[in-house]
Amino acid sequence: MDNELALLTLFGSVAALLFAWGRARRVLAFPEGSERMKKISSSIHQGAMAYLRRQYRILIGFFAGMFLILIGMAAFGFLTWFVPFAFVTGGFFSGLSGFVGMQIATRANARTAQACRVGLNKGLNVAFSAGSVMGFTVVGLGLLDISIWYLLLSLVFHLPVEDITSTMLTFGMGASSMALFARVGGGIYTKAADVGADLVGKVEAGIPEDDPRNPAVIADNVGDNVGDVAGMGADLYESYVGSILSACALGVVAFNKIESVDRVNAVVVPMLLAAIGVMASILGSLLIRTGESTEQGTLLKALRRGTNTSAVLIAAAAFPLVWFVFGREFIGFYLAILFGLLAGVLIGFFTEYFTSDSYKPTRKLAEKSSTGSATIIIGGLSLGMLSTALPILIIVVCVMAAYSFSGGFIDSSRGLYGIALAAVGMLSTLGITLATDAYGPIADNAGGIAEMAGLEPEVRRRTDALDSLGNTTAATGKGFAIGSAALTALALIASYVEKIQEVGGEGIQLDMSVMNPTVLCGLFIGACLPFLFAALTMSSVGRAAQSIVMEVRRQFKEIKGLMEGKAEADYEACVDICTRASLKEMVLPTLLAIVIPVLVGLILGYNGVIGMLAGSTAAGFLLAVFMSNAGGAWDNAKKYIEGGAYGGKGSECHKAAVVGDTVGDPFKDTSGPSINILIKLLSMVSIVFAAFVVQFHIF
Amino acid sequence: MDNELALLTLFGSVAALLFAWGRARRVLAFPEGSERMKKISSSIHQGAMAYLRRQYRILIGFFAGMFLILIGMAAFGFLTWFVPFAFVTGGFFSGLSGFVGMQIATRANARTAQACRVGLNKGLNVAFSAGSVMGFTVVGLGLLDISIWYLLLSLVFHLPVEDITSTMLTFGMGASSMALFARVGGGIYTKAADVGADLVGKVEAGIPEDDPRNPAVIADNVGDNVGDVAGMGADLYESYVGSILSACALGVVAFNKIESVDRVNAVVVPMLLAAIGVMASILGSLLIRTGESTEQGTLLKALRRGTNTSAVLIAAAAFPLVWFVFGREFIGFYLAILFGLLAGVLIGFFTEYFTSDSYKPTRKLAEKSSTGSATIIIGGLSLGMLSTALPILIIVVCVMAAYSFSGGFIDSSRGLYGIALAAVGMLSTLGITLATDAYGPIADNAGGIAEMAGLEPEVRRRTDALDSLGNTTAATGKGFAIGSAALTALALIASYVEKIQEVGGEGIQLDMSVMNPTVLCGLFIGACLPFLFAALTMSSVGRAAQSIVMEVRRQFKEIKGLMEGKAEADYEACVDICTRASLKEMVLPTLLAIVIPVLVGLILGYNGVIGMLAGSTAAGFLLAVFMSNAGGAWDNAKKYIEGGAYGGKGSECHKAAVVGDTVGDPFKDTSGPSINILIKLLSMVSIVFAAFVVQFHIF
Repeated sequence: MDNELALLTLFGSVAALLFAWGRARRVLAFPEGSERMKKISSSIHQGAMAYLRRQYRILIGFFAGMFLILIGMAAFGFLTWFVPFAFVTGGFFSGLSGFVGMQIATRANARTAQACRVGLNKGLNVAFSAGSVMGFTVVGLGLLDISIWYLLLSLVFHLPVEDITSTMLTFGMGASSMALFARVGGGIYTKAADVGADLVGKVEAGIPEDDPRNPAVIADNVGDNVGDVAGMGADLYESYVGSILSACALGVVAFNKIESVDRVNAVVVPMLLAAIGVMASILGSLLIRTGESTEQGTLLKALRRGTNTSAVLIAAAAFPLVWFVFGREFIGFYLAILFGLLAGVLIGFFTEYFTSDSYKPTRKLAEKSSTGSATIIIGGLSLGMLSTALPILIIVVCVMAAYSFSGGFIDSSRGLYGIALAAVGMLSTLGITLATDAYGPIADNAGGIAEMAGLEPEVRRRTDALDSLGNTTAATGKGFAIGSAALTALALIASYVEKIQEVGGEGIQLDMSVMNPTVLCGLFIGACLPFLFAALTMSSVGRAAQSIVMEVRRQFKEIKGLMEGKAEADYEACVDICTRASLKEMVLPTLLAIVIPVLVGLILGYNGVIGMLAGSTAAGFLLAVFMSNAGGAWDNAKKYIEGGAYGGKGSECHKAAVVGDTVGDPFKDTSGPSINILIKLLSMVSIVFAAFVVQFHIF
Repeated sequence: MDNELALLTLFGSVAALLFAWGRARRVLAFPEGSERMKKISSSIHQGAMAYLRRQYRILIGFFAGMFLILIGMAAFGFLTWFVPFAFVTGGFFSGLSGFVGMQIATRANARTAQACRVGLNKGLNVAFSAGSVMGFTVVGLGLLDISIWYLLLSLVFHLPVEDITSTMLTFGMGASSMALFARVGGGIYTKAADVGADLVGKVEAGIPEDDPRNPAVIADNVGDNVGDVAGMGADLYESYVGSILSACALGVVAFNKIESVDRVNAVVVPMLLAAIGVMASILGSLLIRTGESTEQGTLLKALRRGTNTSAVLIAAAAFPLVWFVFGREFIGFYLAILFGLLAGVLIGFFTEYFTSDSYKPTRKLAEKSSTGSATIIIGGLSLGMLSTALPILIIVVCVMAAYSFSGGFIDSSRGLYGIALAAVGMLSTLGITLATDAYGPIADNAGGIAEMAGLEPEVRRRTDALDSLGNTTAATGKGFAIGSAALTALALIASYVEKIQEVGGEGIQLDMSVMNPTVLCGLFIGACLPFLFAALTMSSVGRAAQSIVMEVRRQFKEIKGLMEGKAEADYEACVDICTRASLKEMVLPTLLAIVIPVLVGLILGYNGVIGMLAGSTAAGFLLAVFMSNAGGAWDNAKKYIEGGAYGGKGSECHKAAVVGDTVGDPFKDTSGPSINILIKLLSMVSIVFAAFVVQFHIF
């Protein structure tokens, strides 16, 4: 029971990548449609690539700098020599996930539009296949990174298992910082373009969405790709890898005192669980198809069939895994996994409940538009805040259940391992959930292309049906990302505590009591960080959007014949402004997320850091749920009104709802999702700098 | 050094009450102006009293019910027999503070307007004198309640000092629940009336603020009194009393192991410090006068002279207090007090910085109105979130300093006493800071009366100058209220921990580590409560405002000649709707705040409760600062535009800013301030139910 089993993970990784490759071939086999469609798609593709190229150029600088810092720390003995390299591979694979996802997404948009000319099922097929490329690339690369390092450190360098896991944990920092850059930069880009295009195009000039006369229209479509595809890919890569690595690290500790089980097994289980998840997700994906009804219920049922089948398969396969690897007496860990899976499903459901216009909350929110934009804003903020209560309860029940069933009240390290396994369980369906999530922006782009290329109204109706479904699955996906982030962050805090004890040895005076003033002050600072971060990212969006507004206004004024459709807009200028603005704005928040945990450690010590991590996880989870759900609800309330309620498009109610939607844009697509990464990056940075902080701190 | 010194507190209390009485006589000696002014003022007075009468009727039911529950718990030995009575007196005095403040405020409004006909200085004089009645009634009654109970328990019942303080602590629960009802009910009333009046009057009918044709205008003015006066009075009464009581309780513990000092002294010092604060505040108030310039700087300087003098006097007098009562070796406690005072001043300053239009943040926010209401909303939310960082830092530095200088790293109980003393230090200037705060709504009302009674424009200009200054001092006051709430809440958590050890004795298994899952889950739940609470209160405002909107629309439609000024509006109908709606909406949030801590205790045990209290304090502080500052900044951005910037009144920018202001109304005057009370009430309830929870809990 050991390293050979780890090879199975490599096998899972290869299976995922092969499946992704197969799906990609399938997508590329579809025709791209007319010349006009090709041209639009290619502009989007080029804009997105230009953005990524410049983003990667900046990030290479960052990674090189951090690499040198880590090398320096290794030279002084604060880290092993593997860490700087692990850091870089983590960042590389995370970036690669986003890159591949975006490559395929920008190639699939015109193809989806073209397929929708044939029929809805075909459209879904192309878009979902492209989404699957993304989903399975993320999990495939994640498992590849993990299994290669594991095999390398164990078979080549013959490190003891606890050194393997503690080294591997640190490459999460690379993945997390890459993810944060991608999420923040992409999030600012997409929302600046969106808000900018809407404010001048829809509100001032009165032209419809995706109208080719709008100079920001290409930038807006590029944004969907760099934010919702590349950003999300890097984000979930990081969650996925982080949860597996922290489970491995905690598992070694948990089985330290247990003679009957080899500690390697505790490392193998989370890795194999992930591999099982890959196979289940592949099977689930194969089940997804639909008829020709654009009824959202039917489409949703098609996707649900896939995800639910995967979840059931994992639940079934995890039982023998735990039973055979750990033995009957540790079957409680299976329950922990099950609670994790279930919590993911439930949080997803309640996110949908609060944000979909099929349910009461969003419909009532739409009604508030009848007394103006102020009341719909107040209503959305209040809905978002209210919607935090159930996810918090679900997480609390999941944590208590995972901890207790795993035997945490006998030995706390087992309970913490149980929590980490719950996180892995929740994320094990990632291949398919991410596919259902990533297909949304592709359908959105397809709709844009249909509009710009002047395709038949029937096509737009079909892409709209796909897009609207995408909004629902995106909401579920967001709830899922937040829930898994919270569990992973908790596991990472536990890993940090272990790390401190490992590097500090006897000299450590752990006092994690909330009545210890350093813990308490850390808690306050930690709770403040998500607020600070949300503030910075929101105002970045505001500033970047402002520059787009100016540019679009300028073009409408200066380019003669633009409004009449006789001259073409200068799309590239907008793409360029978005790129520059978002890359500039992305730096400060991310650097803060890296510098602050080190500073807190140096001043308040490791107890303060633990408080900070707990505070940022709790407040971050709440703020992320609040912002994502408020944003989602505003978006769908607007769509609900556009569907004909309260006077429909163009009515006063609709105008009020557009204000709500515009406020919600940075909420749900920039600040909210970035906070997920923030809370994990804080722990990752703390773990990497643990030895340094143990050596030098004031309190 | 003992009970005789406690008599000095009684003396301070009597001095405060006498000063308040003198100020009240002075206010009432001024003429009320014309018949029309008298009539308007009397309508406001009657509306406010009708509200209070009905509120108290509901609260009598609540207090009677809780009294019976507490009697029952005392019968089973979970409480001493004093507690139910202490609970009731706490509630009674808190309510009385609000009642007295409102009595004088509603009598001072017309007098202030009339005085402004003579001159600005006279107007300030009346308004500030009335504010002082409120300020000194609050501190006077607070100290009266404390000193009478102290003398009763020590001289009549001869209880040992630790039993005295632990009994007295529980009457904070009465004050806190009263305060929460008053704040929530009053806050919903004032904002429902305000939003309702604005939405129909200003936005739909296009008539100016305080126009007598607006049927909600009297309700709006009543709201200023029941929310900003009565609610705030009860709120700060509770903070004041809570901070003193928790300091007393922690002091006894801190000096348990120190032979050289009588433990009674540890009780006497916070009480005497408060008494010193009263005298200093009286002296400071006597210094406040101004010339005839309506320049805000001059007016502000006049108020600042008063508050700063008081702070300096307290800083000077606290030194000999600590030196002589505790002796030289404990002079560190003096530094704790000093840091508390300073933190209060600094938080007040930064609140002003972020919310006043004399500084950059609010001016830049006003600029955002040029791209519409969505951008000013995003800007305000981001400003509010950003503004949490500095107050958090100030509190963290204050906590660390108070803890260290008091010797917390030698004996943690001394550190915790130091934190409690910092809270008392911060609140010791309450008499005068509350006076500068409470005069705002009076000036606001005076302006309303000037408008409705058609006084000379010069009068309105003067009341506007006073009102605008009131907005600044209100912002400072809010920062101060939040800062003191955070420190007091921390002291209360420490008191809860002591209480648990006291009632549980040997059987207690305190494990307050954030890695204990019950603590962690408690933390998550606690952090969620302020969000939940803010959501409930915001949607209450929304619902209540909606009913006002309907009523005002109905009157405009059905009462012929109303718009032409030929018929009078049915003001009472609006007052009645506001009263009923706000009282109905006030019940659920407050009951939740009482039930949840007990539930959490029964399920997660006392460790879970400690986590919950820490989580709610951190998240509550952040959310309260965020909401208050965002609301304040929107309000002042609107005023800045009304002052002529970005097109002034009636411009598109102004319309956008009005949306911001409307969203900000429940933020800054309902949800934000209620959270201050919430975080303390949670601890108070936990303390009262401590013995019960120790006996019965699942985890």
